[in-house]
Order: sequence, then C-alpha cells, then structure tokens
Amino acid sequence: MLENPRSARVRAVAKLTKRRMRDETGLFLLEGPQAVREALTYGPDGIVELYATPAAADKHTDIARHAAEAGVDLVFTSEQVLEAMSDTVTPQGVVAVARQFPTSARDVFAASPRLVAVCEQVRDPGNLGTIIRAADAAGADAVILTGRTVDPYNPKVVRSTTGSLFHVPIALGGELADVVDAARAAGLHVVAADVKGGDLLAARADGTLARPTAWLFGNEARGLEDDALALADVALRLPIYGRAESLNLATAASVCLYETAFAQRTP
Amino acid sequence: MLENPRSARVRAVAKLTKRRMRDETGLFLLEGPQAVREALTYGPDGIVELYATPAAADKHTDIARHAAEAGVDLVFTSEQVLEAMSDTVTPQGVVAVARQFPTSARDVFAASPRLVAVCEQVRDPGNLGTIIRAADAAGADAVILTGRTVDPYNPKVVRSTTGSLFHVPIALGGELADVVDAARAAGLHVVAADVKGGDLLAARADGTLARPTAWLFGNEARGLEDDALALADVALRLPIYGRAESLNLATAASVCLYETAFAQRTP
Repeated sequence: MLENPRSARVRAVAKLTKRRMRDETGLFLLEGPQAVREALTYGPDGIVELYATPAAADKHTDIARHAAEAGVDLVFTSEQVLEAMSDTVTPQGVVAVARQFPTSARDVFAASPRLVAVCEQVRDPGNLGTIIRAADAAGADAVILTGRTVDPYNPKVVRSTTGSLFHVPIALGGELADVVDAARAAGLHVVAADVKGGDLLAARADGTLARPTAWLFGNEARGLEDDALALADVALRLPIYGRAESLNLATAASVCLYETAFAQRTP
Repeated sequence: MLENPRSARVRAVAKLTKRRMRDETGLFLLEGPQAVREALTYGPDGIVELYATPAAADKHTDIARHAAEAGVDLVFTSEQVLEAMSDTVTPQGVVAVARQFPTSARDVFAASPRLVAVCEQVRDPGNLGTIIRAADAAGADAVILTGRTVDPYNPKVVRSTTGSLFHVPIALGGELADVVDAARAAGLHVVAADVKGGDLLAARADGTLARPTAWLFGNEARGLEDDALALADVALRLPIYGRAESLNLATAASVCLYETAFAQRTP
C-alpha cells in the first residue's frame, strides 16, 4: 500500500494537474469512480495506473473487477496519498492515470459526420466540459478544439464532461481556417454562433438547421473574432426574448446543438 | 471611509451570506459592479446600502452617478472591508445590501403567463442561477421555486443569474401541488421534465410545446419524485442521441425552455 504522499510516484501523478506535465507525458488524471468506470468501459487499454483506498475499493467492487478483467493493476493507497494525487478535495477514493487519446480533424471529417462542434478560444474548463457533454447527448460526431482553447485533459474539463470525454471523439489543435475548409470539403454547412448573426428561429423554419452542420462556438467573453466569423457560411444568434444580456456559452451551445439534432431528425 | 473589517456594520453585511440572516432580515447581498448595476436599473428603491472602494468607484463612475440619481448613499470602504463583506474572493470593489423582492405564485398566475419554470427541490445554487438566467433569456414570465429549492438570494445564485434575478419574477415557497393546481386553473399545460417521459422530439412535432406551458424541473440528482411527477399533465424527456448518461439539469432546462419559446413563436 502506498502511504507516503511525498514519494516520487505520488508526486508524478499529482503533477498531471499541470498542463506542462500532461503535454510532456501524454498522460492525464482521472478522478473519482464515475470517470474511472467510463475509462474502464470505453478505453481500458489507455489506463496506465489505477489507485484506490481500500475503503473505496470495497465500496466500488465493480471497479476492481473491471480492472482485473482489463488487466489493469489496482494499487492500494492511504487516504492521504489519494488526496495528494488529486486536484479535487473529494476524489472519492479512486484515481487513475491514462493516456490521452485525441483524434485528428482529418479523421473526424473522413467519417462523414453530420454534426460537429468546433470550439475556438474557449477558455473556461467548466464551459468546455459542459459543451462536450451536451455534444455527446445531442449525438454530435465530434468536438474539435481550435486556437487557444483549454486543454480537454485538464482535470476540471474531465470532471465536467462526466464521462463524455470517452464517448465523443475530441480533435485537438489546428487553425480554425483549416478546420473550416475541411468541414466544408466534407459537405458540412459551417454555422457560427454569434450575437450579430441572423435569428435562429428563422433558420429553424427554413431548413437551414437540418443540413449536416459544423457549429463554431467562440470565447465566452468576446465571442468569435471578426476573422473567425468571416470563415463561416452563416452566423446565427439565439434570440433573447427577455431582458437577459446574454446566455452562458455552454447553455447557448447546448440549445444550438439540440436544435440541429432535432431538425436533422424531423421529416 | 470604513476601514475596520471587524466592525459591527461590516459583520452585519457579511452575515447575509448565511441563509438564516437573510431570512431574519429580508435582505441580501449583491456583489460586483454588474449585479449592483442591474439593481440600480431595475430595483433602486430596494437598495439599502451601497459600498465601494475608491478605486472601484473611480473605475465604474456610472455606479456612483446612478446611485446619486436614485438617492442611494455610496459609502467608501477599504479593500479589506470590502473583502470581509463578500462571499467571493474578488467582489471587484463593489457590494450592496438590498431588500428581497419575491413575488407570489398567485400574482404570477394572475398575469396570464405563457411560459413558467417551476423548480422543485433544486439544490445546487449554480444550477438554479443558470435556470433563472435561461428562463429570462427564453422570455419566461416567471420562475417559481417549490419544496426545498435553494434560496434564490444565496450569493452563488445571485451571481450565476448575472442580473436575471432582477429581470424575471421569482415566486418563493409553497407546495408543488398547489402551484400545479394554480397553473392549470390559469390555463397552463403542466409539463414535467423527466427521463421516464415521452420524447420531446415527438412533442415538438405534434404542437404540445406551443401551448402555454408550466415546466416542472426536479432535483439534479434524483429528478422529480413519483408523486410530483403524477401531478403533471404530461412528462417529456430530452432524448439522448449519444452515449451520455444524462444532461446537466440547467442545460436540459435551458433546451426545454427554448424549445417551448420557439414553438410558441412558430406559426
């Protein structure tokens, strides 16, 4: 049982809360039984290390069983060690280290997608995680991150996807202009979500949203820059019917993605 | 200038972060220039005290001007005093104390509403705030809180409404059964958001969503209890097209509210 929270092994795990160490190692941190379960289900080969307190292993017997089936060693740790490894105050006794598994925009578009979310300069981890979760729920084929969008393997992003990180392909990096070109070449209609765009309600009526679509979502404070906006085929805004100044980015993105998912499934 | 963070006056403000003190005094705390601006615009008579650091007052000159026009005294404080008054780490130099201004479900229904969000046992302040903001954006006529839903004057709720607390009437307390009876008597179709309900996509096609609607949203972890669900005219679920287990409550509520707002505006 690991008992020294200052040991090199424990510190190596804890360092994965830093982007630099994630980039160097290609690894990331999974915290809590739910995230670890999703990884054991959808990507067991990617799990490099698995840690649990004896109490948590007793409580979540399915995790030890799945780990054994997947050939992943479960290492017992003290409560202190587990806390030292984690970014959260309450990791609930289970932590894993896994290999990052990004896909490429090229592979996304090669698979003839019908609904893709492109996040350009999205900076808040909670927002990105919520968008990934909503994209998964709405049946999007992929989420593509461009510009200086936050790292999807950031622990806060991983937590707020509540498992969707493992369900929907995430393509990393690249310039927005290249992604838009590839999207268009793949037959997707490129739609920017922007407060200066046309009314989404009108697009709902005229069939625009039923087309295979790549949505572009911009930074939570500034939106899409003018040159990013100019790349899109059309810009649409979610109308504000009340007196709210704006909607939270993740909320607006969720409504846009579901509107498209519904339109694509409506005869 | 107030300089002693341990003075009785400062402590009285800080205590408004506790529900008991808010309930006793009928007051609540506004933190940051945006929230204070909304209060000065939409409810200046409710502002009891207004505090700012000299630096913040210099930066946000409109606040001092609006306060003077509204007859609200602006009291200067040190940075330390302002931090001691606030629930946040960065209140951005401006804090106000205001009177709570709940409405009643009776008044909500007397005004012939077409879209109302009812939150039953919603416990997370961020979720409630995001739902209030989305309800405002979608043009809902009111948000009604029933059961043991979190206090809308909780500082975290106030912050996450980003001003919408002042835009949309919020009715407090009461039993869900009474609210549902009143909604139905006011001609509203009562629709529960529930994973066991019918497909929202079908309701979108058959005109259900275009009716004047009271949406019922339940607890983020458990959903609506069976007896709460039984009160509704119909239950609908947001379909999950991907592999996500569920959607965040605030995200799901936002999509439901916008779907209804769109349906009600579609010829």
